[in-house]
Amino acid sequence: TFDHSYSLTSGTTSTELLKKLNEQRDIIALMEVKMKEMKSTIRQLRITEAKLREEVRDRDRIMSMAVLRKKHGV
Amino acid sequence: TFDHSYSLTSGTTSTELLKKLNEQRDIIALMEVKMKEMKSTIRQLRITEAKLREEVRDRDRIMSMAVLRKKHGV
Repeated sequence: TFDHSYSLTSGTTSTELLKKLNEQRDIIALMEVKMKEMKSTIRQLRITEAKLREEVRDRDRIMSMAVLRKKHGV
Repeated sequence: TFDHSYSLTSGTTSTELLKKLNEQRDIIALMEVKMKEMKSTIRQLRITEAKLREEVRDRDRIMSMAVLRKKHGV
């Protein structure tokens, strides 16, 4: 579903097509770098999320033990 | 620093260049979709991180109040 394809009807020369081709190549290379960065950011955020979930669980465990001690004098 | 530029020396025809140009266009469009998805994933993960940090802080607050109560009988 890509609307505007390039076509020969516009009367572009090979030199122009080549220029456009190289411009797009550079765009693709830049996007690849950007995507690599984003992938690494996502990986790092998932690690942080797991770590924080563990910290919440730890605290809940400590608090529920404290409640049990108070209730039952364990 | 993009190594292999396309050049006319390879004797490619306009039709071939055009085909390549449209292939690149499709790749760029697909990468844009992918990048949008990744951006949205990163945004969501940052929201989750903030929420979890708040949950950890809440629990630390509750626990330190409990410690104070026990120590000073407040």
